[in-house]
Amino acid sequence: MRKTPPLIAALAMSIALPAVAQDTVAADAVPAVSADVSYIFNTLLFLIGGFLVMWMAAGFAMLEAGLVRSRNVTTQLFKNVSLFAIAGIMYWLIGYNLMYPGDGWTVSGVIGSIFSPVTLDPVGAGDVSAGYSAGSDFLFQLMFCATTASIVSGTLAERVKLWPFMIFTALLTGIIYPIEASWQWGGGFLSEMGFSDFAGSTLVHATGGFAALAGAIILGARDGKYRADGRMQPMPGSNLALATLGTFILWLGWFGFNGGSQLALGTVNDAADVSRIFVNTNMAASAGALAAIAVTQIMYRKIDLTMVLNGALAGLVAITAEPLFPSIFGSILIGAVGGAIAVFVVPLLDKFKIDDVVGAIPVHLVAGVWGTLIVPASNPDASYITQLIGIVVIGVFTFVISFVIWTILKMTMGIRVDREAEITGLDISEMGMEAYPDFVQAK
Amino acid sequence: MRKTPPLIAALAMSIALPAVAQDTVAADAVPAVSADVSYIFNTLLFLIGGFLVMWMAAGFAMLEAGLVRSRNVTTQLFKNVSLFAIAGIMYWLIGYNLMYPGDGWTVSGVIGSIFSPVTLDPVGAGDVSAGYSAGSDFLFQLMFCATTASIVSGTLAERVKLWPFMIFTALLTGIIYPIEASWQWGGGFLSEMGFSDFAGSTLVHATGGFAALAGAIILGARDGKYRADGRMQPMPGSNLALATLGTFILWLGWFGFNGGSQLALGTVNDAADVSRIFVNTNMAASAGALAAIAVTQIMYRKIDLTMVLNGALAGLVAITAEPLFPSIFGSILIGAVGGAIAVFVVPLLDKFKIDDVVGAIPVHLVAGVWGTLIVPASNPDASYITQLIGIVVIGVFTFVISFVIWTILKMTMGIRVDREAEITGLDISEMGMEAYPDFVQAK
Amino acid sequence: MRKTPPLIAALAMSIALPAVAQDTVAADAVPAVSADVSYIFNTLLFLIGGFLVMWMAAGFAMLEAGLVRSRNVTTQLFKNVSLFAIAGIMYWLIGYNLMYPGDGWTVSGVIGSIFSPVTLDPVGAGDVSAGYSAGSDFLFQLMFCATTASIVSGTLAERVKLWPFMIFTALLTGIIYPIEASWQWGGGFLSEMGFSDFAGSTLVHATGGFAALAGAIILGARDGKYRADGRMQPMPGSNLALATLGTFILWLGWFGFNGGSQLALGTVNDAADVSRIFVNTNMAASAGALAAIAVTQIMYRKIDLTMVLNGALAGLVAITAEPLFPSIFGSILIGAVGGAIAVFVVPLLDKFKIDDVVGAIPVHLVAGVWGTLIVPASNPDASYITQLIGIVVIGVFTFVISFVIWTILKMTMGIRVDREAEITGLDISEMGMEAYPDFVQAK
Repeated sequence: MRKTPPLIAALAMSIALPAVAQDTVAADAVPAVSADVSYIFNTLLFLIGGFLVMWMAAGFAMLEAGLVRSRNVTTQLFKNVSLFAIAGIMYWLIGYNLMYPGDGWTVSGVIGSIFSPVTLDPVGAGDVSAGYSAGSDFLFQLMFCATTASIVSGTLAERVKLWPFMIFTALLTGIIYPIEASWQWGGGFLSEMGFSDFAGSTLVHATGGFAALAGAIILGARDGKYRADGRMQPMPGSNLALATLGTFILWLGWFGFNGGSQLALGTVNDAADVSRIFVNTNMAASAGALAAIAVTQIMYRKIDLTMVLNGALAGLVAITAEPLFPSIFGSILIGAVGGAIAVFVVPLLDKFKIDDVVGAIPVHLVAGVWGTLIVPASNPDASYITQLIGIVVIGVFTFVISFVIWTILKMTMGIRVDREAEITGLDISEMGMEAYPDFVQAK
Repeated sequence: MRKTPPLIAALAMSIALPAVAQDTVAADAVPAVSADVSYIFNTLLFLIGGFLVMWMAAGFAMLEAGLVRSRNVTTQLFKNVSLFAIAGIMYWLIGYNLMYPGDGWTVSGVIGSIFSPVTLDPVGAGDVSAGYSAGSDFLFQLMFCATTASIVSGTLAERVKLWPFMIFTALLTGIIYPIEASWQWGGGFLSEMGFSDFAGSTLVHATGGFAALAGAIILGARDGKYRADGRMQPMPGSNLALATLGTFILWLGWFGFNGGSQLALGTVNDAADVSRIFVNTNMAASAGALAAIAVTQIMYRKIDLTMVLNGALAGLVAITAEPLFPSIFGSILIGAVGGAIAVFVVPLLDKFKIDDVVGAIPVHLVAGVWGTLIVPASNPDASYITQLIGIVVIGVFTFVISFVIWTILKMTMGIRVDREAEITGLDISEMGMEAYPDFVQAK
Repeated sequence: MRKTPPLIAALAMSIALPAVAQDTVAADAVPAVSADVSYIFNTLLFLIGGFLVMWMAAGFAMLEAGLVRSRNVTTQLFKNVSLFAIAGIMYWLIGYNLMYPGDGWTVSGVIGSIFSPVTLDPVGAGDVSAGYSAGSDFLFQLMFCATTASIVSGTLAERVKLWPFMIFTALLTGIIYPIEASWQWGGGFLSEMGFSDFAGSTLVHATGGFAALAGAIILGARDGKYRADGRMQPMPGSNLALATLGTFILWLGWFGFNGGSQLALGTVNDAADVSRIFVNTNMAASAGALAAIAVTQIMYRKIDLTMVLNGALAGLVAITAEPLFPSIFGSILIGAVGGAIAVFVVPLLDKFKIDDVVGAIPVHLVAGVWGTLIVPASNPDASYITQLIGIVVIGVFTFVISFVIWTILKMTMGIRVDREAEITGLDISEMGMEAYPDFVQAK
């Protein structure tokens, strides 16, 4: 039934071998954990996972603030704070029950509950039969929604206007993300088909990447980025210490992102699985960084720090679709390929004059697709064809809707600052506030 | 019995409605969690809450280092490290048992145990009947004490001398905070009266704000801040990336601050309540940020990033008095009003020539008072009159004692650097060490 | 049997007194926690400890990026990312089972399993009889290995070449650290002797310090550091905000470092012990900072922020050998001496023209030795002689092997950039990428 292209299948074997050996589950293991204790552990996993993924918002803020030029730092910081705030409100108001309608689908398997704001468990009255508290689940899922929005802001940096960006963020977090994610995690049609995306290589990361790609195409490149002589003007980030800090924050937060996606900690087996996920997540990140070190040393004769940071992140994105089943060695391969992809895709985007300021498209979209495609190599329940279908469906949906929204925004209020404002920097033109006013800037 | 001014009561209704619907508690729910397991969960909550609130010390350090001018950054960093170290020693030596005297009140309900340093459970011998370990409780409470001190340092930045600041910190963390907090959390007279302050909008944040206000008045404004022509000299922060990082750190730490204040995780109901608190905390912060965005856009035609950061923090401060009972919508209202308050109070302080460098008084004092006053809107056990009494009592106590201490310090050792030192910057004059020596500074 | 030098014994008494009083363990306490629940708690402790110690990698990165000159920041950031990635791969491939051979010693008690990569529990099949999941243990231990490597990078900053540094890191994390740590934590000969090092004052921190010392000697001081006239050229760090952030990160991470080293959370007694450790860890850090404040104020008439940061870290290193047994007061003494040591050792190293850019040798090596030596003052199972033997054995082994490796690297590929490259800065010469390109640099 399951079909695998021969080349990928061969690679899959090498990755899957250790995992297959580890695949037997003691079916008769009845955990000696009461329902109440299990409930508390599950809830605690969501709370810890939730605050770790919340922390990723700070990671994106620092990464992006470090990778833009100093004249656009205030604006970039603001966008990261505002998108996180907007995501909170929109996901509560519309998103969560659009994504998790339970039996309340508006269009079965495709569109969930329309406008049904989240309510929590009553005070002092957790429902043990639910297995975890409603609030902890909402918190955890909210953070994934916010992460999707964080991915977009980096790509569009240094030229997008504030208000259209905030409006797009509201639509992404309230509608686009919840709908496409409902297809899988809400129990919609992709989930019925057998699509597999453990923590969101496609549902979160590629989705953010597709939304960013649509925006980048409509927005156009930064002024002067692609010169008339066909060469590219380097526009180096203003603060690599912040970019590195942001990467470490994201690396840390990813333990919550992937580990929390086990959705349970209340049995011995769940605890062991969460541990596997933590380890595999870390190893994929390490391998992604090392792959980027090797590739940039060979290709450019110098190691490129920003590529190494993106390599680690691409390794993390790649393992996100399936951080449980691969062996450690498999995770290293998956992460390393992700890291290498991130390096190779950057010049490719430049060839098409798609100006992605922080490299979010290589890291989140392309490595996300890679991670999703390779899931069947370790997870016996996944199939390559279904993975491909899922990616295409989500990609087309997100890209088209985003493209339409960006186009409408462009035609109505305009999405780009004028050329003079861009050259001056958005911090002065849009916000009237420099990020580093005490320091003398070059040029 | 309970009286509410009609205007507040009307607002209260709108906030309370969803909360009231969620208010029923299953009284017969007997948790199937053994005393030992409950002990471990409770202890773990304190430990996780403890390290998250500890992290807030870093948040304050970054926020303040980002909001002062570059010539005062080293000094501001130092003050944040030193106050955290001092708080640890003082709260162990004097504070904790002054605040939590148990049966050992020196003056019943008013002054706890005088000079009784904390001891921990013996090695390898937790007392299950206590419900949690002594050490975890001390750690968690210590971090609240340190937070109170952190609030003060930002307001007094750029002109206060190091040693008087450290002496004040020792008195605040060893005596002032423990005494006023004992009145409520130690089971003192305010608690007897029915005052309600879940995690310390007044006990921690407004207290820090009152101490800062007293200091700011005695210390006077920074040289040149309020010009002879009646206009205000802007003195923008030197590093908004750090300020934003600090805000994200505080936002993260606040999950521990409010969530840990449930003081228990060992039952299903406690786990559900902690989850409610996490969600409400996050939503109030989001709403505070969005309110500040809206208000600054409307008032100043430009969004002000530092106001947005303070708006988020004010939302967090406001929800701290009661993060459990409000519905999500209620939390959003509480946070939004907090965020708006923070923006409106800043020019008000300037009118009185009270120079609060980082906006700690609007954020921690005024939003803290707001949050405390609005508790009865969602919590049926609280009353508006008692809330007001509690705020006034704590405010007068803290302000008067702080005023006296600052005055004595001023008369004895002096609390302010001389004018020349202030213009040069405290980093050179007080510490002899620049924060950014490799960078050419403006002016 | 146990012998203590009289002077140390006297000091020991004063530290031990409160601890001794707390020393009784209720032997008959049978915890009412099922094996499954205990397994989940133990695993959770490793996971939380693991992500907290992972976060220390970011702390070292920020601390070191803040303490080097701006022209070497990109390089320093890169080294911290790459060493963490390398540690992950090497410790999986070789290190872990070399360190924890179980019954598979190659040379009994001295050299563990040679080349036996780590495997995890099968998917969905935790082994409850193991007490915790294999993955969580590996993750936690990996982070200690990475920490050891982080210590080295700071000392050798601003002159070491990238690739030799990475090769040394691979050998340190794959071979040197695992072998010496196996002697104690793997159940090797030091453990048989009764050596005591709870969380690695010597096994991690002094080891990193010895490896750094060997490197610093062979590498030589930075160009111009020790002038012909016998005076020292100050080379202040470029960003004290980052250095302070790094210190706070390390302080936070240390709760995981020491607390997680209890290795169990599944009983009331373990939970109480972890709490003791959290408190003692925090108090030692506070005391270390305050000691450095006092000493620098007295010695230099000005408080030195970088010394205060190093004082806090030295307090943390010192308590790491025994964070459980000391009373709070004992922990304060241990930390304060550690902090004072850090200040005093800095000029000593300069006297020998050993150029330690960030002060890692005073902080990690010397304070680590102090902490290890003082263990018997509070822990009745430890002896001063054995502690001394352990330190000497590990110190000689690590120093000699490191010395040999650095020498070979120097003779083959060279370990130092040429003088011109050093003056230009490694960011340009080695990486071709400035950390702060938009800012005008002094000189």
